[in-house]
Amino acid sequence: MSPSLTRQAVERNLAALGLRLPDLAPSSRGSYTVVRVDSDLAHTSALGPFELDGSGRFTHVGEVGTDLDEEPARAAAAVTALNLIAAVDQHPGMERVLRIIELIAYVRARSEFESHAAVADGASEVLLTAFGPEMGAHARTVIGVRSLPFGVPVVASMKVRLQGEVR
Amino acid sequence: MSPSLTRQAVERNLAALGLRLPDLAPSSRGSYTVVRVDSDLAHTSALGPFELDGSGRFTHVGEVGTDLDEEPARAAAAVTALNLIAAVDQHPGMERVLRIIELIAYVRARSEFESHAAVADGASEVLLTAFGPEMGAHARTVIGVRSLPFGVPVVASMKVRLQGEVR
Amino acid sequence: MSPSLTRQAVERNLAALGLRLPDLAPSSRGSYTVVRVDSDLAHTSALGPFELDGSGRFTHVGEVGTDLDEEPARAAAAVTALNLIAAVDQHPGMERVLRIIELIAYVRARSEFESHAAVADGASEVLLTAFGPEMGAHARTVIGVRSLPFGVPVVASMKVRLQGEVR
Repeated sequence: MSPSLTRQAVERNLAALGLRLPDLAPSSRGSYTVVRVDSDLAHTSALGPFELDGSGRFTHVGEVGTDLDEEPARAAAAVTALNLIAAVDQHPGMERVLRIIELIAYVRARSEFESHAAVADGASEVLLTAFGPEMGAHARTVIGVRSLPFGVPVVASMKVRLQGEVR
Repeated sequence: MSPSLTRQAVERNLAALGLRLPDLAPSSRGSYTVVRVDSDLAHTSALGPFELDGSGRFTHVGEVGTDLDEEPARAAAAVTALNLIAAVDQHPGMERVLRIIELIAYVRARSEFESHAAVADGASEVLLTAFGPEMGAHARTVIGVRSLPFGVPVVASMKVRLQGEVR
Repeated sequence: MSPSLTRQAVERNLAALGLRLPDLAPSSRGSYTVVRVDSDLAHTSALGPFELDGSGRFTHVGEVGTDLDEEPARAAAAVTALNLIAAVDQHPGMERVLRIIELIAYVRARSEFESHAAVADGASEVLLTAFGPEMGAHARTVIGVRSLPFGVPVVASMKVRLQGEVR
Protein backbone atom coordinates (compact mmCIF):
# COMPACT_ATOMS: atom_id res chain seq x y z
CA MET A 1 0.00 0.00 0.00
CA SER A 2 1.31 3.43 -0.94
CA PRO A 3 0.33 6.55 0.97
CA SER A 4 -3.15 7.75 0.10
CA LEU A 5 -5.00 11.02 0.48
CA THR A 6 -8.16 11.64 2.43
CA ARG A 7 -10.97 13.88 1.16
CA GLN A 8 -9.84 16.40 3.77
CA ALA A 9 -6.28 16.46 2.39
CA VAL A 10 -7.56 16.92 -1.16
CA GLU A 11 -9.85 19.70 0.02
CA ARG A 12 -6.93 21.45 1.70
CA ASN A 13 -4.86 21.19 -1.46
CA LEU A 14 -7.68 22.64 -3.54
CA ALA A 15 -8.42 25.42 -1.05
CA ALA A 16 -4.93 26.79 -1.76
CA LEU A 17 -6.22 27.61 -5.27
CA GLY A 18 -9.57 28.86 -3.93
CA LEU A 19 -11.33 25.73 -5.18
CA ARG A 20 -13.68 23.39 -3.38
CA LEU A 21 -15.18 20.01 -4.15
CA PRO A 22 -18.89 19.72 -5.00
CA ASP A 23 -21.16 18.89 -2.07
CA LEU A 24 -22.68 16.04 -4.03
CA ALA A 25 -21.18 13.94 -6.78
CA PRO A 26 -23.08 14.05 -10.09
CA SER A 27 -25.69 11.34 -10.50
CA SER A 28 -26.24 9.35 -13.67
CA ARG A 29 -28.44 10.92 -16.35
CA GLY A 30 -28.94 7.75 -18.33
CA SER A 31 -28.43 4.00 -18.39
CA TYR A 32 -24.82 4.23 -17.30
CA THR A 33 -22.74 4.17 -14.13
CA VAL A 34 -20.94 7.35 -13.06
CA VAL A 35 -17.81 5.46 -11.95
CA ARG A 36 -17.22 1.87 -12.97
CA VAL A 37 -14.73 0.10 -10.73
CA ASP A 38 -13.00 -2.83 -12.40
CA SER A 39 -10.48 -4.58 -10.21
CA ASP A 40 -7.95 -1.88 -9.31
CA LEU A 41 -9.03 0.63 -11.94
CA ALA A 42 -11.79 3.22 -11.79
CA HIS A 43 -13.23 4.48 -15.08
CA THR A 44 -15.41 7.57 -14.83
CA SER A 45 -18.12 8.43 -17.28
CA ALA A 46 -17.65 11.71 -19.10
CA LEU A 47 -18.98 14.42 -16.80
CA GLY A 48 -19.65 18.10 -17.40
CA PRO A 49 -19.38 21.34 -15.41
CA PHE A 50 -22.08 20.59 -12.86
CA GLU A 51 -22.73 23.31 -10.25
CA LEU A 52 -21.00 22.52 -6.97
CA ASP A 53 -24.31 22.75 -5.05
CA GLY A 54 -25.54 19.38 -6.25
CA SER A 55 -28.48 20.97 -8.08
CA GLY A 56 -27.59 19.21 -11.31
CA ARG A 57 -27.45 22.53 -13.16
CA PHE A 58 -24.38 23.44 -15.19
CA THR A 59 -22.07 26.38 -14.51
CA HIS A 60 -21.55 27.00 -18.24
CA VAL A 61 -23.33 26.17 -21.48
CA GLY A 62 -22.58 27.10 -25.09
CA GLU A 63 -19.91 26.81 -27.75
CA VAL A 64 -16.38 28.01 -27.08
CA GLY A 65 -15.43 30.83 -29.42
CA THR A 66 -19.07 31.65 -30.11
CA ASP A 67 -20.98 31.76 -26.83
CA LEU A 68 -18.11 31.84 -24.39
CA ASP A 69 -14.43 32.75 -24.49
CA GLU A 70 -11.38 30.71 -23.62
CA GLU A 71 -11.22 31.88 -20.00
CA PRO A 72 -14.75 30.78 -19.00
CA ALA A 73 -14.18 27.55 -20.92
CA ARG A 74 -11.09 26.95 -18.83
CA ALA A 75 -13.15 27.61 -15.68
CA ALA A 76 -15.75 25.10 -16.93
CA ALA A 77 -12.98 22.54 -17.38
CA ALA A 78 -11.82 23.16 -13.81
CA VAL A 79 -15.37 22.65 -12.49
CA THR A 80 -15.59 19.45 -14.56
CA ALA A 81 -12.41 18.14 -12.92
CA LEU A 82 -13.80 18.93 -9.46
CA ASN A 83 -16.86 16.85 -10.34
CA LEU A 84 -14.68 13.97 -11.55
CA ILE A 85 -12.82 14.00 -8.22
CA ALA A 86 -16.09 14.16 -6.25
CA ALA A 87 -17.42 11.21 -8.23
CA VAL A 88 -14.39 9.09 -7.42
CA ASP A 89 -14.57 10.19 -3.77
CA GLN A 90 -18.15 8.96 -3.62
CA HIS A 91 -17.25 5.64 -5.20
CA PRO A 92 -14.87 3.93 -4.59
CA GLY A 93 -13.55 6.60 -2.19
CA MET A 94 -10.66 9.05 -2.12
CA GLU A 95 -8.49 6.81 0.08
CA ARG A 96 -8.35 4.20 -2.68
CA VAL A 97 -6.81 6.54 -5.28
CA LEU A 98 -3.26 5.47 -6.08
CA ARG A 99 -2.70 7.65 -9.12
CA ILE A 100 -4.48 9.46 -11.92
CA ILE A 101 -3.70 7.81 -15.25
CA GLU A 102 -5.53 9.61 -18.02
CA LEU A 103 -7.85 12.53 -18.71
CA ILE A 104 -9.84 12.80 -21.93
CA ALA A 105 -11.42 16.19 -22.48
CA TYR A 106 -13.88 17.17 -25.20
CA VAL A 107 -14.31 20.86 -25.93
CA ARG A 108 -17.35 22.07 -27.89
CA ALA A 109 -15.84 24.73 -30.09
CA ARG A 110 -15.92 26.55 -33.41
CA SER A 111 -14.05 24.86 -36.24
CA GLU A 112 -11.30 27.51 -36.15
CA PHE A 113 -10.61 27.02 -32.43
CA GLU A 114 -7.00 26.06 -31.62
CA SER A 115 -6.58 26.69 -27.86
CA HIS A 116 -7.80 23.31 -26.63
CA ALA A 117 -4.68 22.82 -24.54
CA ALA A 118 -5.32 26.02 -22.57
CA VAL A 119 -8.90 24.95 -21.86
CA ALA A 120 -7.92 21.43 -20.83
CA ASP A 121 -5.18 22.84 -18.57
CA GLY A 122 -8.06 24.15 -16.42
CA ALA A 123 -8.92 20.52 -15.65
CA SER A 124 -5.35 19.20 -15.53
CA GLU A 125 -4.25 21.83 -13.03
CA VAL A 126 -7.09 20.86 -10.70
CA LEU A 127 -5.92 17.25 -10.78
CA LEU A 128 -2.30 18.23 -10.16
CA THR A 129 -3.31 20.54 -7.31
CA ALA A 130 -5.64 18.03 -5.71
CA PHE A 131 -3.31 15.03 -5.82
CA GLY A 132 0.14 16.57 -6.19
CA PRO A 133 2.57 16.28 -9.11
CA GLU A 134 3.27 12.54 -8.77
CA MET A 135 -0.17 11.07 -8.05
CA GLY A 136 -1.92 13.67 -10.19
CA ALA A 137 0.21 13.42 -13.35
CA HIS A 138 -1.75 12.10 -16.32
CA ALA A 139 -1.74 11.46 -20.04
CA ARG A 140 -4.21 13.72 -21.78
CA THR A 141 -6.28 13.84 -24.91
CA VAL A 142 -8.19 16.98 -25.76
CA ILE A 143 -10.15 17.46 -28.96
CA GLY A 144 -12.74 19.88 -30.31
CA VAL A 145 -16.20 18.46 -30.84
CA ARG A 146 -19.26 19.78 -32.58
CA SER A 147 -21.89 19.14 -29.91
CA LEU A 148 -22.10 17.89 -26.33
CA PRO A 149 -24.88 16.57 -24.09
CA PHE A 150 -27.11 19.31 -22.64
CA GLY A 151 -25.20 21.97 -24.58
CA VAL A 152 -22.26 22.20 -22.18
CA PRO A 153 -18.91 23.53 -23.48
CA VAL A 154 -16.76 20.74 -22.05
CA VAL A 155 -16.99 17.18 -20.74
CA ALA A 156 -14.18 14.94 -19.55
CA SER A 157 -13.56 11.39 -18.36
CA MET A 158 -10.77 10.10 -16.16
CA LYS A 159 -9.04 6.78 -15.50
CA VAL A 160 -7.65 6.17 -12.00
CA ARG A 161 -5.46 3.40 -10.52
CA LEU A 162 -6.73 2.22 -7.13
CA GLN A 163 -5.01 0.76 -4.12
CA GLY A 164 -5.79 -2.85 -3.36
CA GLU A 165 -7.72 -5.06 -5.71
CA VAL A 166 -11.11 -6.71 -5.47
CA ARG A 167 -12.15 -8.98 -8.32
CA MET B 1 -13.92 -18.07 -11.99
CA SER B 2 -17.17 -16.18 -11.69
CA PRO B 3 -20.33 -17.34 -13.44
CA SER B 4 -20.31 -16.55 -17.13
CA LEU B 5 -22.95 -16.31 -19.84
CA THR B 6 -23.18 -18.38 -22.97
CA ARG B 7 -24.19 -16.89 -26.32
CA GLN B 8 -27.48 -18.72 -25.90
CA ALA B 9 -28.16 -17.03 -22.54
CA VAL B 10 -27.32 -13.61 -24.01
CA GLU B 11 -29.60 -14.32 -26.96
CA ARG B 12 -32.45 -15.25 -24.60
CA ASN B 13 -31.95 -12.03 -22.65
CA LEU B 14 -32.01 -9.97 -25.83
CA ALA B 15 -35.03 -11.80 -27.25
CA ALA B 16 -37.04 -10.41 -24.33
CA LEU B 17 -36.57 -6.97 -25.92
CA GLY B 18 -37.19 -8.29 -29.41
CA LEU B 19 -33.49 -8.02 -30.25
CA ARG B 20 -31.14 -10.54 -31.78
CA LEU B 21 -27.40 -10.77 -32.29
CA PRO B 22 -25.93 -10.39 -35.78
CA ASP B 23 -25.29 -13.63 -37.62
CA LEU B 24 -21.74 -12.56 -38.32
CA ALA B 25 -19.50 -10.24 -36.38
CA PRO B 26 -18.25 -7.22 -38.33
CA SER B 27 -14.94 -7.74 -40.06
CA SER B 28 -12.13 -5.20 -40.14
CA ARG B 29 -12.31 -2.48 -42.77
CA GLY B 30 -8.73 -1.36 -42.40
CA SER B 31 -5.37 -2.13 -40.85
CA TYR B 32 -6.84 -2.75 -37.42
CA THR B 33 -8.12 -5.64 -35.32
CA VAL B 34 -11.84 -5.72 -34.47
CA VAL B 35 -11.21 -6.93 -30.91
CA ARG B 36 -7.76 -6.73 -29.35
CA VAL B 37 -7.36 -9.06 -26.39
CA ASP B 38 -4.67 -7.97 -23.97
CA SER B 39 -4.28 -10.25 -20.99
CA ASP B 40 -7.71 -10.21 -19.29
CA LEU B 41 -9.06 -7.18 -21.13
CA ALA B 42 -10.76 -6.99 -24.50
CA HIS B 43 -10.72 -3.69 -26.35
CA THR B 44 -13.07 -3.41 -29.30
CA SER B 45 -12.51 -1.11 -32.22
CA ALA B 46 -15.23 1.47 -32.75
CA LEU B 47 -17.98 -0.24 -34.72
CA GLY B 48 -21.08 1.14 -36.43
CA PRO B 49 -24.65 0.01 -37.04
CA PHE B 50 -23.88 -2.91 -39.34
CA GLU B 51 -26.88 -4.86 -40.65
CA LEU B 52 -27.46 -8.04 -38.68
CA ASP B 53 -27.27 -10.15 -41.84
CA GLY B 54 -23.51 -9.92 -42.10
CA SER B 55 -23.74 -8.10 -45.44
CA GLY B 56 -21.51 -5.29 -44.17
CA ARG B 57 -24.18 -2.72 -45.06
CA PHE B 58 -25.33 -0.23 -42.44
CA THR B 59 -28.85 0.05 -41.02
CA HIS B 60 -28.60 3.85 -40.81
CA VAL B 61 -26.53 6.61 -42.39
CA GLY B 62 -26.69 10.38 -42.03
CA GLU B 63 -26.44 13.17 -39.49
CA VAL B 64 -28.67 13.16 -36.41
CA GLY B 65 -30.96 16.18 -36.37
CA THR B 66 -30.56 16.68 -40.13
CA ASP B 67 -30.99 13.33 -41.90
CA LEU B 68 -32.46 11.28 -39.08
CA ASP B 69 -34.27 11.98 -35.82
CA GLU B 70 -33.40 10.96 -32.30
CA GLU B 71 -35.45 7.76 -32.35
CA PRO B 72 -33.74 6.17 -35.39
CA ALA B 73 -30.40 7.32 -33.98
CA ARG B 74 -31.21 5.48 -30.79
CA ALA B 75 -32.07 2.39 -32.85
CA ALA B 76 -28.73 2.73 -34.66
CA ALA B 77 -26.97 2.85 -31.30
CA ALA B 78 -28.77 -0.34 -30.26
CA VAL B 79 -27.67 -2.09 -33.46
CA THR B 80 -24.13 -0.88 -32.83
CA ALA B 81 -24.17 -2.45 -29.37
CA LEU B 82 -25.41 -5.74 -30.82
CA ASN B 83 -22.46 -5.69 -33.17
CA LEU B 84 -20.05 -4.99 -30.32
CA ILE B 85 -21.43 -8.00 -28.45
CA ALA B 86 -21.20 -10.20 -31.55
CA ALA B 87 -17.59 -9.13 -32.05
CA VAL B 88 -16.64 -10.11 -28.51
CA ASP B 89 -18.54 -13.38 -28.89
CA GLN B 90 -16.47 -14.19 -31.98
CA HIS B 91 -13.23 -13.34 -30.21
CA PRO B 92 -12.44 -14.10 -27.43
CA GLY B 93 -15.88 -15.65 -26.85
CA MET B 94 -18.95 -14.84 -24.78
CA GLU B 95 -18.00 -17.29 -21.99
CA ARG B 96 -14.91 -15.22 -21.20
CA VAL B 97 -16.84 -12.01 -20.47
CA LEU B 98 -16.59 -11.12 -16.79
CA ARG B 99 -17.99 -7.60 -16.95
CA ILE B 100 -18.48 -4.66 -19.28
CA ILE B 101 -16.30 -1.74 -18.16
CA GLU B 102 -16.78 1.15 -20.51
CA LEU B 103 -18.70 2.28 -23.58
CA ILE B 104 -17.59 5.24 -25.68
CA ALA B 105 -20.20 6.44 -28.17
CA TYR B 106 -19.75 9.03 -30.89
CA VAL B 107 -22.88 10.57 -32.37
CA ARG B 108 -22.68 12.43 -35.69
CA ALA B 109 -25.01 15.34 -35.06
CA ARG B 110 -25.82 18.99 -35.76
CA SER B 111 -24.04 21.51 -33.58
CA GLU B 112 -27.26 22.33 -31.69
CA PHE B 113 -27.93 18.68 -30.77
CA GLU B 114 -28.21 18.04 -27.02
CA SER B 115 -29.86 14.60 -26.67
CA HIS B 116 -26.73 12.49 -26.84
CA ALA B 117 -27.64 10.67 -23.65
CA ALA B 118 -30.94 9.45 -25.10
CA VAL B 119 -29.17 8.15 -28.22
CA ALA B 120 -26.42 6.42 -26.23
CA ASP B 121 -29.03 4.86 -23.95
CA GLY B 122 -30.03 2.81 -27.00
CA ALA B 123 -26.65 1.10 -26.77
CA SER B 124 -26.38 1.04 -22.98
CA GLU B 125 -29.77 -0.64 -22.60
CA VAL B 126 -28.70 -3.41 -24.98
CA LEU B 127 -25.62 -4.06 -22.83
CA LEU B 128 -27.66 -4.07 -19.62
CA THR B 129 -30.28 -6.38 -21.15
CA ALA B 130 -27.72 -8.75 -22.62
CA PHE B 131 -25.52 -9.11 -19.55
CA GLY B 132 -27.79 -8.05 -16.70
CA PRO B 133 -27.41 -5.05 -14.36
CA GLU B 134 -24.20 -6.19 -12.62
CA MET B 135 -22.12 -7.59 -15.48
CA GLY B 136 -23.53 -5.08 -17.95
CA ALA B 137 -23.06 -1.86 -15.95
CA HIS B 138 -20.54 0.50 -17.53
CA ALA B 139 -19.01 3.93 -17.46
CA ARG B 140 -19.99 5.90 -20.52
CA THR B 141 -18.75 8.73 -22.64
CA VAL B 142 -20.96 10.11 -25.39
CA ILE B 143 -20.07 13.11 -27.51
CA GLY B 144 -21.27 14.73 -30.72
CA VAL B 145 -18.89 14.55 -33.64
CA ARG B 146 -18.83 16.23 -37.01
CA SER B 147 -18.24 13.24 -39.25
CA LEU B 148 -17.93 9.47 -38.99
CA PRO B 149 -16.53 6.70 -41.21
CA PHE B 150 -18.86 5.72 -44.09
CA GLY B 151 -21.34 8.42 -43.07
CA VAL B 152 -22.95 6.45 -40.24
CA PRO B 153 -24.75 8.36 -37.45
CA VAL B 154 -23.09 6.56 -34.56
CA VAL B 155 -20.07 4.41 -33.73
CA ALA B 156 -19.04 3.01 -30.35
CA SER B 157 -16.22 1.09 -28.72
CA MET B 158 -16.32 -1.05 -25.62
CA LYS B 159 -13.87 -2.30 -23.01
CA VAL B 160 -14.55 -5.69 -21.38
CA ARG B 161 -12.96 -7.54 -18.46
CA LEU B 162 -12.37 -11.21 -19.21
CA GLN B 163 -12.23 -14.28 -17.08
CA GLY B 164 -8.85 -15.95 -16.80
CA GLU B 165 -5.68 -14.45 -18.13
CA VAL B 166 -3.38 -15.43 -20.94
CA ARG B 167 -0.26 -13.36 -21.51
CA MET C 1 9.57 -12.07 -20.53
CA SER C 2 8.63 -12.21 -24.17
CA PRO C 3 11.02 -11.13 -26.90
CA SER C 4 11.22 -7.36 -27.24
CA LEU C 5 12.40 -4.97 -29.90
CA THR C 6 15.19 -2.44 -29.64
CA ARG C 7 14.94 1.04 -31.12
CA GLN C 8 17.40 -0.14 -33.75
CA ALA C 9 15.16 -3.04 -34.77
CA VAL C 10 12.13 -0.75 -35.00
CA GLU C 11 14.16 1.72 -37.07
CA ARG C 12 15.18 -1.09 -39.43
CA ASN C 13 11.56 -2.16 -39.83
CA LEU C 14 10.48 1.40 -40.57
CA ALA C 15 13.34 2.03 -42.99
CA ALA C 16 11.86 -0.67 -45.23
CA LEU C 17 8.93 1.73 -45.79
CA GLY C 18 11.23 4.73 -46.12
CA LEU C 19 10.19 5.98 -42.67
CA ARG C 20 12.29 7.10 -39.76
CA LEU C 21 11.61 7.92 -36.13
CA PRO C 22 11.77 11.53 -34.94
CA ASP C 23 15.10 12.61 -33.47
CA LEU C 24 13.33 13.91 -30.40
CA ALA C 25 10.08 12.81 -28.83
CA PRO C 26 7.43 15.54 -28.56
CA SER C 27 7.48 17.43 -25.27
CA SER C 28 4.38 18.38 -23.32
CA ARG C 29 2.56 21.56 -24.36
CA GLY C 30 0.47 21.84 -21.23
CA SER C 31 -0.11 20.48 -17.74
CA TYR C 32 0.00 16.87 -18.85
CA THR C 33 2.48 14.03 -19.19
CA VAL C 34 3.35 12.81 -22.71
CA VAL C 35 3.39 9.15 -21.66
CA ARG C 36 1.88 8.04 -18.35
CA VAL C 37 3.17 4.67 -17.21
CA ASP C 38 0.82 2.85 -14.87
CA SER C 39 2.06 -0.54 -13.76
CA ASP C 40 2.52 -2.51 -17.00
CA LEU C 41 0.55 -0.15 -19.23
CA ALA C 42 1.70 2.98 -21.01
CA HIS C 43 -0.93 5.56 -21.98
CA THR C 44 0.20 8.23 -24.40
CA SER C 45 -1.34 11.64 -24.60
CA ALA C 46 -2.88 12.49 -27.95
CA LEU C 47 -0.05 13.72 -30.16
CA GLY C 48 -0.08 15.37 -33.57
CA PRO C 49 2.10 15.33 -36.70
CA PHE C 50 5.18 16.94 -35.21
CA GLU C 51 8.13 17.45 -37.57
CA LEU C 52 10.74 14.74 -37.18
CA ASP C 53 13.48 17.32 -36.51
CA GLY C 54 12.32 17.99 -32.97
CA SER C 55 11.53 21.63 -33.80
CA GLY C 56 8.01 21.30 -32.42
CA ARG C 57 6.53 22.49 -35.73
CA PHE C 58 3.86 20.41 -37.46
CA THR C 59 4.19 18.77 -40.86
CA HIS C 60 0.54 19.49 -41.71
CA VAL C 61 -2.18 21.87 -40.57
CA GLY C 62 -5.74 22.40 -41.76
CA GLU C 63 -9.04 20.63 -42.24
CA VAL C 64 -9.20 17.43 -44.29
CA GLY C 65 -11.42 17.87 -47.32
CA THR C 66 -11.02 21.66 -47.21
CA ASP C 67 -7.36 22.53 -46.74
CA LEU C 68 -5.77 19.17 -47.46
CA ASP C 69 -6.76 16.01 -49.27
CA GLU C 70 -6.95 12.44 -48.05
CA GLU C 71 -3.41 11.53 -49.10
CA PRO C 72 -1.62 14.27 -47.10
CA ALA C 73 -3.95 13.52 -44.19
CA ARG C 74 -2.82 9.92 -44.35
CA ALA C 75 0.80 11.09 -44.35
CA ALA C 76 0.03 13.28 -41.31
CA ALA C 77 -1.40 10.22 -39.55
CA ALA C 78 1.79 8.28 -40.33
CA VAL C 79 3.94 11.08 -38.89
CA THR C 80 1.71 11.11 -35.82
CA ALA C 81 2.29 7.38 -35.29
CA LEU C 82 6.06 7.88 -35.61
CA ASN C 83 5.81 10.48 -32.85
CA LEU C 84 3.79 8.12 -30.65
CA ILE C 85 6.48 5.47 -31.05
CA ALA C 86 9.26 7.98 -30.32
CA ALA C 87 7.42 9.08 -27.19
CA VAL C 88 7.18 5.52 -25.88
CA ASP C 89 10.81 4.91 -26.79
CA GLN C 90 11.81 7.93 -24.68
CA HIS C 91 9.72 6.75 -21.75
CA PRO C 92 9.48 3.96 -20.67
CA GLY C 93 11.70 2.69 -23.53
CA MET C 94 11.25 0.55 -26.63
CA GLU C 95 12.55 -2.61 -24.94
CA ARG C 96 9.60 -2.58 -22.56
CA VAL C 97 6.94 -2.72 -25.28
CA LEU C 98 5.11 -6.04 -25.19
CA ARG C 99 2.26 -5.19 -27.52
CA ILE C 100 0.25 -2.30 -28.90
CA ILE C 101 -3.32 -2.47 -27.62
CA GLU C 102 -5.30 0.43 -28.97
CA LEU C 103 -5.04 3.48 -31.22
CA ILE C 104 -7.56 6.31 -31.07
CA ALA C 105 -7.33 8.73 -33.98
CA TYR C 106 -9.16 12.03 -34.38
CA VAL C 107 -9.38 13.50 -37.86
CA ARG C 108 -10.31 17.16 -38.31
CA ALA C 109 -12.57 17.00 -41.34
CA ARG C 110 -15.55 18.45 -43.18
CA SER C 111 -18.93 17.12 -42.12
CA GLU C 112 -19.32 15.16 -45.38
CA PHE C 113 -15.98 13.35 -44.95
CA GLU C 114 -16.26 9.54 -44.93
CA SER C 115 -12.71 8.23 -45.52
CA HIS C 116 -11.55 8.22 -41.90
CA ALA C 117 -10.43 4.60 -42.17
CA ALA C 118 -8.05 5.39 -45.02
CA VAL C 119 -6.51 8.27 -43.06
CA ALA C 120 -6.15 6.23 -39.88
CA ASP C 121 -4.57 3.38 -41.86
CA GLY C 122 -1.63 5.74 -42.33
CA ALA C 123 -1.01 5.47 -38.59
CA SER C 124 -1.99 1.82 -38.22
CA GLU C 125 0.38 0.71 -40.95
CA VAL C 126 3.27 2.46 -39.23
CA LEU C 127 2.51 0.54 -36.03
CA LEU C 128 2.25 -2.77 -37.88
CA THR C 129 5.47 -2.09 -39.77
CA ALA C 130 7.38 -0.97 -36.70
CA PHE C 131 6.34 -3.82 -34.40
CA GLY C 132 5.22 -6.55 -36.78
CA PRO C 133 1.75 -8.06 -37.20
CA GLU C 134 1.51 -9.67 -33.76
CA MET C 135 2.98 -7.05 -31.45
CA GLY C 136 1.65 -4.21 -33.57
CA ALA C 137 -1.99 -5.33 -33.98
CA HIS C 138 -4.45 -2.98 -32.29
CA ALA C 139 -8.07 -2.08 -31.79
CA ARG C 140 -8.84 1.26 -33.39
CA THR C 141 -11.27 4.09 -33.08
CA VAL C 142 -11.25 6.85 -35.67
CA ILE C 143 -13.74 9.69 -35.74
CA GLY C 144 -14.10 13.04 -37.45
CA VAL C 145 -13.83 16.07 -35.21
CA ARG C 146 -14.54 19.74 -35.74
CA SER C 147 -11.34 21.26 -34.38
CA LEU C 148 -7.98 20.14 -33.01
CA PRO C 149 -5.23 21.78 -30.97
CA PHE C 150 -2.97 24.09 -32.99
CA GLY C 151 -5.08 23.49 -36.11
CA VAL C 152 -3.54 20.13 -36.99
CA PRO C 153 -5.53 17.71 -39.19
CA VAL C 154 -5.04 14.63 -36.99
CA VAL C 155 -4.06 13.64 -33.45
CA ALA C 156 -3.91 10.16 -31.96
CA SER C 157 -3.29 8.42 -28.65
CA MET C 158 -2.06 4.89 -28.06
CA LYS C 159 -2.22 2.33 -25.28
CA VAL C 160 0.69 -0.12 -24.91
CA ARG C 161 1.24 -3.21 -22.77
CA LEU C 162 4.69 -3.29 -21.19
CA GLN C 163 6.98 -6.08 -20.12
CA GLY C 164 7.57 -6.38 -16.41
CA GLU C 165 5.62 -4.45 -13.84
CA VAL C 166 6.57 -1.74 -11.41
CA ARG C 167 3.90 -0.50 -9.02
